Formats: sequence, structure tokens, C-alpha cells
Amino acid sequence: MSKSRTEAFSDGVFAVAATLLVFSLGTPIVNSGLSRALINEWPSYAAYAISFLTIVVIWINHHVVVDAMDHIDRPFLFLNALLLLTVAFIPFPTGVLAHYLQAGHDQQIAAFAYGLTMSAMAFAFSLFSLYARRFLRTPMPFDWLGFSTGLLLFPLAMLLALVSFELSLAIYACVTLFYLVLPIVRERVMRSRN
Amino acid sequence: MSKSRTEAFSDGVFAVAATLLVFSLGTPIVNSGLSRALINEWPSYAAYAISFLTIVVIWINHHVVVDAMDHIDRPFLFLNALLLLTVAFIPFPTGVLAHYLQAGHDQQIAAFAYGLTMSAMAFAFSLFSLYARRFLRTPMPFDWLGFSTGLLLFPLAMLLALVSFELSLAIYACVTLFYLVLPIVRERVMRSRN
Amino acid sequence: MSKSRTEAFSDGVFAVAATLLVFSLGTPIVNSGLSRALINEWPSYAAYAISFLTIVVIWINHHVVVDAMDHIDRPFLFLNALLLLTVAFIPFPTGVLAHYLQAGHDQQIAAFAYGLTMSAMAFAFSLFSLYARRFLRTPMPFDWLGFSTGLLLFPLAMLLALVSFELSLAIYACVTLFYLVLPIVRERVMRSRN
Amino acid sequence: MSKSRTEAFSDGVFAVAATLLVFSLGTPIVNSGLSRALINEWPSYAAYAISFLTIVVIWINHHVVVDAMDHIDRPFLFLNALLLLTVAFIPFPTGVLAHYLQAGHDQQIAAFAYGLTMSAMAFAFSLFSLYARRFLRTPMPFDWLGFSTGLLLFPLAMLLALVSFELSLAIYACVTLFYLVLPIVRERVMRSRN
Repeated sequence: MSKSRTEAFSDGVFAVAATLLVFSLGTPIVNSGLSRALINEWPSYAAYAISFLTIVVIWINHHVVVDAMDHIDRPFLFLNALLLLTVAFIPFPTGVLAHYLQAGHDQQIAAFAYGLTMSAMAFAFSLFSLYARRFLRTPMPFDWLGFSTGLLLFPLAMLLALVSFELSLAIYACVTLFYLVLPIVRERVMRSRN
Repeated sequence: MSKSRTEAFSDGVFAVAATLLVFSLGTPIVNSGLSRALINEWPSYAAYAISFLTIVVIWINHHVVVDAMDHIDRPFLFLNALLLLTVAFIPFPTGVLAHYLQAGHDQQIAAFAYGLTMSAMAFAFSLFSLYARRFLRTPMPFDWLGFSTGLLLFPLAMLLALVSFELSLAIYACVTLFYLVLPIVRERVMRSRN
Repeated sequence: MSKSRTEAFSDGVFAVAATLLVFSLGTPIVNSGLSRALINEWPSYAAYAISFLTIVVIWINHHVVVDAMDHIDRPFLFLNALLLLTVAFIPFPTGVLAHYLQAGHDQQIAAFAYGLTMSAMAFAFSLFSLYARRFLRTPMPFDWLGFSTGLLLFPLAMLLALVSFELSLAIYACVTLFYLVLPIVRERVMRSRN
Repeated sequence: MSKSRTEAFSDGVFAVAATLLVFSLGTPIVNSGLSRALINEWPSYAAYAISFLTIVVIWINHHVVVDAMDHIDRPFLFLNALLLLTVAFIPFPTGVLAHYLQAGHDQQIAAFAYGLTMSAMAFAFSLFSLYARRFLRTPMPFDWLGFSTGLLLFPLAMLLALVSFELSLAIYACVTLFYLVLPIVRERVMRSRN
């Protein structure tokens, strides 16, 4: 099984999962006052954006890992399948979260379920990238900051959801932004050093 | 992160978003008179066609931009993610527009929401292509006509939607046709000059 | 715009459209007697299979055409977009057909709408492949049989639907089988000649 | 028709079919007690995971087969289309199974329908891989164990479903795990021999 094949299939799952998120946004069926109905759906838009950008972040990191590898083996394919299983699952808790943020009840449970999926995904990605380090083409320093952020903050946000779902959602958004901004900052620092 | 990877993922999102538009067309459930029900859905078909061709246009321009680039960096990936986020969102306002054009009320708001998404997409594409100009392999004249058309006409059509949704939809259709026909005309002109 | 990009995007639309057909098969919600309900859905399975194989056939022919081309230009991209627009539309009339075959009324209209889409698709493919002949790498005999079959039989089946939807569906199935079997026969003949 | 094209289209169908499985998990609509509703959906999660991993397993084996081939011909494309038709169908019986496991009635029929699809898929894959052996680049030992497992155990589980759906589901899960673990074990054995 070649690296390029694995990437093609994985890219497909990432792209489809990200694009399917749009179905967590249902057409609001009202007899009048569509503008208010559309504005009231704002938690759905936020959930859509956070999930979409999270999937993009995992996709980028997936490629960084696979690019650095010399070759792949069967246990790696197995761990990759587990990771994709959690990624393809994301539209489900996103839809649940979007629905219950609007419904105005059970938001804590919905945010907890969302965090559980995100934590499972972060855990699957950790296994995936730890195993991948066995096949590195060139030695690479271990990215402690990036590694532990998701593995600590997603479970933390999941638990906090039971106290305050607003705080929990803010952490999900911040983790995603952190992963988008961190490599930009690092690129800047590296370039200014050279 | 290589250019080809970014293109493969982006192609996936464009292709899936375009194909998901078909779900804005619901099977009409009637007890009799299916032909009339199908004909009455014509605004949905128009919305489907405009959104589909708009996504094709953005996809073509996305490739023209990335092809001209020497390499990409992390901020570019971030802007690309924002662009894809707006593209993958298009099935939502398309479904809303299709529903309310048939429902016969709140069409203005639906056309406004559609225009808001299109304007956001045009804005994201402008940021994306302006930033990309930093990494051009060979200097390229700036395409003022193509650049400003979407950036001006989509917001204009969005605002006009509050007055007349028919006029607004006509402009969306014209902008899409303009972007499909403009490069054909340019290709002709260039060929006739050589 | 390179050929490979166009093929990647087109492949995406073909693959997604084919896979989305599964949603024309709704989970039957019954209180008892699931086996009967599943068996009664057989027209949906037939519609799924015919549409799936038709999309595979168009995909194969799409590649045969693009492979034979030397290069592509902008009007070709436009015709390709029109073809993909009809292909991505197929899940809609397939769902309508599946629903009304089971509902037991309006089957003629549903089969007519299905034939209209298939005819539009055959027409778009004809334009696409006729235009493509301008850019052939090596001269190729014109495939009269394959060309006229879809262009004549799909509209014929569409019109016959108004008289007998069973006959109409039989023709759709036969055309698809014809396109799957014809190249196999030709390959055999060619090989036996060499 | 080149091998790489066929793989690109097939990869697309596999990736989309796997990702669409998430729609077999509907957002539970309750007035209170979301946590209980989400926990009660566990059969849906199990069905999702089994189907997802089964599709990954078929995808891996699809590539192993195509990689070993020297070239492809038209009958092979036809058998590939039949295989993809069964793969793209999987979300339907998965959704039915998920619904009726929760509904608490007709589980036998739902598990039977699931097994019928899996058996059809295993049968299509057997035809596909038997035919492919005509075009092997280098002779390859026939994989009796892998070949007969799916072809015997899926129909067996299908029939057992009529007696005990729990036993049937356990077999589906075991077959999938078997196919994931078998190549890992083989890789280990082969490596320890060298």
C-alpha cells in the first residue's frame, strides 16, 4: 500500500466530512420572519465554522506527518482508519450541538458529546502521529506544544461543558484558532532567524 | 505543505459542495399533479444552476491562482481554508432560497442571505488571490475587471434583494455567466492577436 | 487550466453524484413487517442501479474523450461544466422516480422527468464530445452507434413514459446495459482481429 | 482507460460512501434527557463503526488487487462498477439496521438485509479479484483464507440473523476485525522470517 494512495483516500474523507457539515444547518421553516429565524441560527454557524476549521487543521497535520514518513505499514493503515473514523463522525455531534444550542435546553450534554468526539479524534491523532515517528525520513523534534494542547484542552473543554457550555465552546474555538495561528507564527520566527 | 496536496483537498471540497447542491431540490410529495409540482419547483432549478456554475467558476479561478504561484506558505493555507469554508456553505443559502422562492413569502430575505454568502465568498477569494500575488512565478497583470465584478456586484445584488428579489437573482445569474464567458472572449482575442 | 485538473474535479463530481444516489433509498419507517416494506422498495433499488451504472458509463466515456484530446480550452471547460451540471442533477429525478414508483401514482410523470434529465445529459455529452473532436491528438473514427443511441433512445424513452412507464424504464435499463456491454464486445472483436 | 483513473474514481466512491455513513446517525429530537437519548443510540454507533471499517478494508484490498495488475480491460471495469455499486449501497442497510436496533422490533430482518448487502459486496469483490488474476504482473499465491472468510461468513451471519441478530452482528464485527488484523499478523510473520 503506497503513501500516495493512503493520502488520496484520507483527503477524500477529510474533504467530504468538512463539506457535509453544511447539513447541520437546516433550512428554517417559518411562516414569516425568516430574517429572525436565520439570525437565531447563529450557534449553528459557529458550530459549522469551528468543526470545518478543526477538520482543516487535522487534514494539514495529517499531511505533515505522512510527508515526513519514509514508508507506511499495516498497523499505520489501521491507526489511520481509526483517525478517519473519528473525523467522519464529526458532522454528527456538530448537528446535535447546532440543534440543542438553538433548542435552548440540554446544551451542556450536546457540548459534552461534541467534546467527547473531539477528544477521541485528538487521541486517535496522537496514536497515529506517535506511531508514525518510527518511520521518519529525518529525525524531527517532538512538537510538545501542539501535541499536548489538543490532548489536554479538548478533554478539559468536554468536562467544563457540564458546568458551562459557553466556556466549553469558547475553548473549542480557541484550540482551533491556536492550531491555525501557531504554524504561521513558527514560520515567521523561523524565517526571521534565517 | 505542497501545492498539489492543497489542490487535491480544495478540489474535493469544490466537487462535493457542487454535487450536494442537488439536495436543495426536495422530492415534491403530492397526492396528484406531480407535473405541476415539478414545474412549480423551477426557482429551485434556477438556484441549483446558478450555485453550481458559481462554484465551477470559483474552482477554475482557484486553479488559475495556484498554478501561477511559485510556492505556498501557512498564511496562504489559512486564507484557502476561509475560502473553502464559504464555498462549502453555499448549499445552505441555496436551499433556503429554493424553499422560500416556492413558499412565496420572505423571498427578499432569502435572496439577501444568498447574496451575503456570495459576497463573503467573493471577499474571501479576493483576500486569497491578493495574498497569492506575493508568490507569483512570473509577473502577471492584475485582472481589474474580473476582480471588481464579483466584489462589487454581489454586495450590490445583496442590497437590491431587499427591494426586488427578481432583480437580485438576475444579477447573480449575470455575474456567473459573465465569469464563464469573459475568459472565452479573452482567449479568442488573444488568439486573434497572435 | 490543465487536463489533469479538469479530470480530477470531474471525477469528484461523478463519484459523489453516484454515491449520493443511495439517498433516493429512504429507511422505511414501519411498525411491523419490515421485510415486506423492504421488498416493496424494489423499484427504488432498480432506479438506484440504473442511475449508478449510467453515471459510471458517462464517467468512462468522459475519460475516453479527454484522454484522446491534445489540450483543452475555455469553451471546453464551459461545456464540461454543463455536462457535470446534468450529472450532479441525476440524484433528484432518481429520488422522484423511486418515490412515485412506490407511491403507485404519477409514475408516468416521474419516468418522464427522469428521461428528461437523461436526455439533457446525453445532449450535453454530445456537445462536449463533438467539441472535443477539434483537439484530437490522432484522428479517430466517429462512433455513430454509441453517439446516436443515447441521443435517440433517451428522448424516445422519455416520450414513451407518458404511455407506459414500465416500457420506458426497460429502455433506460437497456441503454445502460448496451453502453456497458458494447465496448466489451468491441474489445473482443478487435483482439480477435489482431 | 488507465489504472490510475479507475483508482481515482473508485477511491472517490469508497471515501464518499464511508463518510456518508454518518447520516445513519440522526440527531435525536427530545424535549429533555438528551444524554439518555444519545446513549440509547449506541447500536447506531456500532453499525457506523462496523460499516466504516468494512469499507476501509474493501478499499485496502481493492488497491492491493489493482496494484498487482499489469493492465485493465473493459470487463474488469464492468466488474469494478458492480463492486462499487454494492459499496455505495452500504449506507442504506446501515441506516435501516441502526433504526431498527433502536426501534426494538424487526431487528432480525434489518440484520438480514445488512448481511445480504455485505454478502453481495463480498461476492462482487470475489468476481473482481478472480478476474483480476488474469492480469497479474508477477504470479501471486492465492489468498484462500482471506478469500473464503468473507464469502462464507457474511452469508452465514446473514442466515443466523433470522435466529439471533446479536450473534449475527457479532460475526460482522469479527469479520471486519479479522480483515484488519490478518495483514498486520502476516506482515509481522514475514518480517520475522527475513
